[in-house]
Amino acid sequence: MDATAIVTELALKARAASRSLSTATGEQRSKALLGIADEIDKSSDFILAANAQDMARAQSEKMHPQTQDRLLLTAERIKGISSGVRQVAELENPLGKIIREKDLPNGLHLEQRTVPFGVVGMVYEARPNVSVDAAVILLASGNAALLRGSSSAAASNAALLKVMRDALAKTSISPEVIQLVPSDDRATVKALLHARGLVDLVIPRGSASLIRMVVDEATVPTIETGAGVCHVYVDEFADLSIALPILINSKTHRPSVCNAAETLLVHSKVAEEFMPVALKALKDAGVIIHCDETTLAIAKKNNVEATLATDENWCTEYGVLEMNVGVVGSVDEAIDHIAKFGTKHTEAIVTQSREVSDRFIAHSDCAAVMVNTSTRFTDGEQMGFGAEIGISNQKLHARGPMGLEAMTTTTWVVTGTGQIRS
Amino acid sequence: MDATAIVTELALKARAASRSLSTATGEQRSKALLGIADEIDKSSDFILAANAQDMARAQSEKMHPQTQDRLLLTAERIKGISSGVRQVAELENPLGKIIREKDLPNGLHLEQRTVPFGVVGMVYEARPNVSVDAAVILLASGNAALLRGSSSAAASNAALLKVMRDALAKTSISPEVIQLVPSDDRATVKALLHARGLVDLVIPRGSASLIRMVVDEATVPTIETGAGVCHVYVDEFADLSIALPILINSKTHRPSVCNAAETLLVHSKVAEEFMPVALKALKDAGVIIHCDETTLAIAKKNNVEATLATDENWCTEYGVLEMNVGVVGSVDEAIDHIAKFGTKHTEAIVTQSREVSDRFIAHSDCAAVMVNTSTRFTDGEQMGFGAEIGISNQKLHARGPMGLEAMTTTTWVVTGTGQIRS
Repeated sequence: MDATAIVTELALKARAASRSLSTATGEQRSKALLGIADEIDKSSDFILAANAQDMARAQSEKMHPQTQDRLLLTAERIKGISSGVRQVAELENPLGKIIREKDLPNGLHLEQRTVPFGVVGMVYEARPNVSVDAAVILLASGNAALLRGSSSAAASNAALLKVMRDALAKTSISPEVIQLVPSDDRATVKALLHARGLVDLVIPRGSASLIRMVVDEATVPTIETGAGVCHVYVDEFADLSIALPILINSKTHRPSVCNAAETLLVHSKVAEEFMPVALKALKDAGVIIHCDETTLAIAKKNNVEATLATDENWCTEYGVLEMNVGVVGSVDEAIDHIAKFGTKHTEAIVTQSREVSDRFIAHSDCAAVMVNTSTRFTDGEQMGFGAEIGISNQKLHARGPMGLEAMTTTTWVVTGTGQIRS
Repeated sequence: MDATAIVTELALKARAASRSLSTATGEQRSKALLGIADEIDKSSDFILAANAQDMARAQSEKMHPQTQDRLLLTAERIKGISSGVRQVAELENPLGKIIREKDLPNGLHLEQRTVPFGVVGMVYEARPNVSVDAAVILLASGNAALLRGSSSAAASNAALLKVMRDALAKTSISPEVIQLVPSDDRATVKALLHARGLVDLVIPRGSASLIRMVVDEATVPTIETGAGVCHVYVDEFADLSIALPILINSKTHRPSVCNAAETLLVHSKVAEEFMPVALKALKDAGVIIHCDETTLAIAKKNNVEATLATDENWCTEYGVLEMNVGVVGSVDEAIDHIAKFGTKHTEAIVTQSREVSDRFIAHSDCAAVMVNTSTRFTDGEQMGFGAEIGISNQKLHARGPMGLEAMTTTTWVVTGTGQIRS
């Protein structure tokens, strides 16, 4: 069967099965998730054996060690996966909520209720745990899942899906709500992205180039994730004692994640006092520095190695211990710089001035503005969503960390007694 | 300049100007809209003269009378346009609302606030009033507007835009927030649809083929509108006295609009009593009927002309006084038929049984479910939104009638006192 036929068949199976999921109660879905968690724990050896196949192939193909590490499952990581599933099982049912409600003068009663999205595709790279993390968030929100992982994790993903489906087989929810889209044929990705009408939504998780490809290629609605050129702006009215920890945390806590900061901007009025401190702390943390002329002079004076930043530097998401640093004359300059080089993800300001932070917020156009705190808080778990399928970097539908709620849509239910339009 | 350069320039102008709009207060925006309404009234002759140019060309090109009527502006229609603007000016400011709010254990305060989408493109056909209707909804929600109307309405649209911009020039809001995308070059549509990053959203209004083209072609996020193959299902537990008015209203009140019903399904248990009545009423209203075998027999017995429906009939949005009619054995059969042939727009059920209506709602996958009322109520004004930029037929971002709120997105504002991730 060609890729389109394969994906069509899987999507139709998932759609047919999704009724058993969307009509289940929240409690039944939760129980099913707990069953999945138990099945994962019981099947640890089975999963590890499959993963060993993938790891062997990865090693023989001399895969980059960092990528191998993303591919690797261990007994402990598997415990982390099942633990994550149990967390999602505890979350509040996002379905059947009444978002808006009104009674019209003509007697009609309106309710806007949350309903499942339907059939959702995930296109992701390397990390096999995404197979489970994403699947359970989708199940908890009443959605069927088509999982298209990386070919490098083929055996691991297949094993994880089998375990999840085995668990579902013991419930009233059809195991067909989770489908593995074969990763041996590159064409299945495109087929999934073009399955408009059969698939309701596709979410990419992975590198910037994967996300770009998915968003450009898809005719199925997508939610763009990733792409974080995030900024920390230290204002003239900043409390410098908190500015430094916020800066270092934003850059170095986990540099590979999209919410890590890539650029530091410092108001000229505090540059003399703060910049040397900041530069030395970044250097001590092993951060490679690119900066503007003003900062370069300060760096030289303080024996901190730095190079002059190009326009390309300012819009680069390094993903490692590397950062851009610059001085600005005002909050408006910071705003303009961010508007030019940012990716609308997370922008942080350190200031004690309410007027300045309000202005910064009003002129920002991003998923999250952090006032006096680290950019690393743009995170579903940190923000109390309980789970996160990804961080949306677009404006449509969901913005910022996406929990169960983002995987729902709405239906208006209008109830009357025979009213008609005159 | 080629089309891409033109659109890029307009989008950049609109983006730069949009700050004057998003930072204006709700009151300032409302006042600006009232000014636009006044300017439209004062400029009626100017607008009519431009429209006369379009009409003359339409007549010389022997444009279809129905399309000519959509193109035509009169003094009365212009009054209707300005009246619509004043209505939008009265609507509640949709910006700066707090959708979600929480305090985290670590002391961080979270607020999810509504903010403008940014720069929104409208691609629309024929009717010049859309230039104003759409523009003011976008302005009221803080968005800059790129308006790409039909070449047949070029002079009318240009005149309306000039009037709106002249009005804005008297306010603190830059007239550059409304831009006319030239319609003399077909390539400007594609350029607009590909202006990802410069334009935040594109909304199509018009024929099914226009909508299809926009959705397939765009890399800019879109909201799919239109496409309404809506159903009225008369259940075995229906109150037949309201079923007939609901049916006739749903089909004939305004057959060309997306929320008009295209198919009637009747439960076999009430077919004997209701079908003859329904068929005769449809015939009297001038509705051409396509139906299944069972209904055809009833039609013949009652001297109602009808033809056998093909699969193509069942999924056709006629847009005129034409309808499909069928008999089903159960609500589940109705549900399955709708799942197969519907476009997820509006589905109506007439029943007194709560159990049946609940089941119908639970198994529906559409923007609106009507229980004991006409499909014609899927309408922003009817539902009390005050204005409607279109009816979304997709699941992402907005579903059903789209008012001001649909033209906003959100930003998380996280406020702390120096918190960092450990």
